[in-house]
Amino acid sequence: MKFDWTTLIGLIAAICTTASFLPQVVKILRSKRTNDVSLLMYAILTTGLFLWLVYGLMLKDIPLILANGISLALCLAVLFLKIKHG
Amino acid sequence: MKFDWTTLIGLIAAICTTASFLPQVVKILRSKRTNDVSLLMYAILTTGLFLWLVYGLMLKDIPLILANGISLALCLAVLFLKIKHG
Repeated sequence: MKFDWTTLIGLIAAICTTASFLPQVVKILRSKRTNDVSLLMYAILTTGLFLWLVYGLMLKDIPLILANGISLALCLAVLFLKIKHG
Repeated sequence: MKFDWTTLIGLIAAICTTASFLPQVVKILRSKRTNDVSLLMYAILTTGLFLWLVYGLMLKDIPLILANGISLALCLAVLFLKIKHG
């Protein structure tokens, strides 16, 4: 199998953008504060990630389904915590 | 041209996930407060979006370049404001 730089970069990109929301979830769980977090951002972002997931399911594209499914779960957690803590 | 639901859903998804960061930028510019925003999240996210942009450039994929270029600019703004306001 030939080493493929493009695929490797795309893979690391997907891992970064998916995992990035975890520190925000952890930060809120610790501080119980969400004053400076934008409700509108997470409302639009979860809508977008849900549509990306639907798009992946329609194309039966496993990487799209996995990356957007995990991101959606993490962003829904931030959205839920934002609504809870205000 | 046949109407394509899959492409339309992918397009709306891309617009949502790209535009979502704008309300966070506006919120911080107004309040000048970023206490509850995770620095680590935006550090990892900008890295990931930069790599998505590189991936798009390598594939010469215009939608990937546009969506991730705009998202990267907005996330860099949040990261800069977070470092400035702490």
